[in-house]
Amino acid sequence: MTTPDTPDDLIETDAVVVGAGPVGLFQVFELGLLEIRAHVIDALPYPGGQPVELYPDKPIYDIPAIPVCTGQELVDRLLDQIKPFGATFHLGQEVSTVHRQQDGRFLVATSKGTHFLTRTVFIAAGVGAFQPRKLNVEGLDRFADTQLFYRVKNPADFADKHLVIVGGGDSALDWALNFAKQGPHRAASVILIHRRDGFQAASASVARMRELCERQEMQFIVGQPNGFEEADGRLNGLKVMGPDAVTRVVPLDALLVFFGLSPKLGPIADWGLDIERKQLVVDTEKFSTSVPGIFAVGDINTYPGKKKLILSGFHECALAAFGAAPYVFPDKTVTLQYTTSSTKLHKVLGVESPTSE
Amino acid sequence: MTTPDTPDDLIETDAVVVGAGPVGLFQVFELGLLEIRAHVIDALPYPGGQPVELYPDKPIYDIPAIPVCTGQELVDRLLDQIKPFGATFHLGQEVSTVHRQQDGRFLVATSKGTHFLTRTVFIAAGVGAFQPRKLNVEGLDRFADTQLFYRVKNPADFADKHLVIVGGGDSALDWALNFAKQGPHRAASVILIHRRDGFQAASASVARMRELCERQEMQFIVGQPNGFEEADGRLNGLKVMGPDAVTRVVPLDALLVFFGLSPKLGPIADWGLDIERKQLVVDTEKFSTSVPGIFAVGDINTYPGKKKLILSGFHECALAAFGAAPYVFPDKTVTLQYTTSSTKLHKVLGVESPTSE
Repeated sequence: MTTPDTPDDLIETDAVVVGAGPVGLFQVFELGLLEIRAHVIDALPYPGGQPVELYPDKPIYDIPAIPVCTGQELVDRLLDQIKPFGATFHLGQEVSTVHRQQDGRFLVATSKGTHFLTRTVFIAAGVGAFQPRKLNVEGLDRFADTQLFYRVKNPADFADKHLVIVGGGDSALDWALNFAKQGPHRAASVILIHRRDGFQAASASVARMRELCERQEMQFIVGQPNGFEEADGRLNGLKVMGPDAVTRVVPLDALLVFFGLSPKLGPIADWGLDIERKQLVVDTEKFSTSVPGIFAVGDINTYPGKKKLILSGFHECALAAFGAAPYVFPDKTVTLQYTTSSTKLHKVLGVESPTSE
Repeated sequence: MTTPDTPDDLIETDAVVVGAGPVGLFQVFELGLLEIRAHVIDALPYPGGQPVELYPDKPIYDIPAIPVCTGQELVDRLLDQIKPFGATFHLGQEVSTVHRQQDGRFLVATSKGTHFLTRTVFIAAGVGAFQPRKLNVEGLDRFADTQLFYRVKNPADFADKHLVIVGGGDSALDWALNFAKQGPHRAASVILIHRRDGFQAASASVARMRELCERQEMQFIVGQPNGFEEADGRLNGLKVMGPDAVTRVVPLDALLVFFGLSPKLGPIADWGLDIERKQLVVDTEKFSTSVPGIFAVGDINTYPGKKKLILSGFHECALAAFGAAPYVFPDKTVTLQYTTSSTKLHKVLGVESPTSE
């Protein structure tokens, strides 16, 4: 790891947590109990990680002492629990590089150019950063964010445009219906393209789409995109091969692709940490990676007996926090105290200690 | 370990959990997910272990995703969560012996004479069985449960008796006030004895006690019991040395001692397991003790990095359950499934699986 020039707008901190899923959030809690403040980074634009991204409404039954809660509820409870610790969230950005400095600290840079100088790093990145699956058509990439989109940030951007939407899941259907219907964001035209005449989406949405097609308020084409047409540097048509093996050109102003999200370990793979089958190798005493000061907790780590359970991640956070304490407080012995009895922890948590009589 | 005769009233099972504290209860849950039924044994007459015995009303702040709950609430939530698994509780009894059988199973016997033949044992005994601290006066023990009591089971037993109550905490004060006041259980007389004129009890109780003393409805004596008097095999007086170093005899019908509870590892120490500083040595892969088939989870175990946290016990239960699976299902590979998605787990939990559209 080489040391680049230190940027000016540097956030100095004791701990950076990579990943704002349940385990990353609970890492903030365990660090907070030891009076270690954390900055949290996540590629998604909101906290919650997998449970919020993949199953916000599905019930989870195996969080200890919570007989049932949804993914979103779990995350809301954790956000509530970590409130006393005032962690700062840096969302919608990935950690791109981590460089160890002469003094042992780490210089962490994100894809948005945020820079941290931190004593410890906690990787709680789950199965990696969730990234939209790409439409695999050579050369199409250069229209990304101008005419090719994998996410709708502002629906108004697409009003009155000729839209082509690719995909067969709920996101593709929902956005197609949204832009085809009467309303402020109505598109000039909407063409939905999917490789087969069958959908993995709510049946009501599929029925509604077919209804709009019958009324010629939108179109549905079965086919596989295999090229594009451009003029003067602008994308103006998508080539689509139909079930009859004939390729046709579908004209468009903007192309929206919804193929779902796929996790990628991403730049973490290049940080020089020991990796085994895409997981970070840790010890079970401190959940330290092969680089002292960098810890890994939750689904991203591996050790003998590892099970990818949220509750295991919670335990790992506690031990990793104690493992990190010597880096943050080199001159102090940090001992375990209990939240039921410790007046110090009551102060840290911002709750009242019972007075003894 | 030798094999005694097998008793007739034998409960054959796959798993015995020793300890009905939070971790023992969650062990039932993790075993249940793998379709392993458990029998649970605890020395206390009710489930809940330490949190219920020592801090039922105190808030706990560090259970993941539960910003605050009392000890009793935590246990109630866990009891709710394990309902689908129909564990059988054997309370008010300690495990006295564990003997490995020829076929590899364990014969477990309790202090109440319950016998189990089990494939696996999970020791979740916390800091050990809670036992009342004894009044250390030689020879006094033989009056236990006839005239000497460390717990009040039925207050009516003490009505109209001359009572001596020893102790300076809430239990001693509360019972002294209870038996001194007007009511169906009023004693003939109540004498409270404590080694000093100061109490670890609610100040309102102390004030009330002093008030009753002024009205001569009870007495308080500062002193240290150091002997007793008996006649015809009956205890009829406690010798108490006062601050003036004079020993006086306090007459009584019944002696109640409230010195609090003290944990004892008890017979577990004699089961032939590796022990380090009164804790059972386990690995961090399966949380197995030195005897294959016997696992230890929660505060009773030790391994590098161990912190006595309830949340660590929860993690240990999950891995121990997977560690136990080969003993219960020798011909089956048991894999991790998720409660959000597995229809098999939904069946085991008795909840409905969502239908896919």
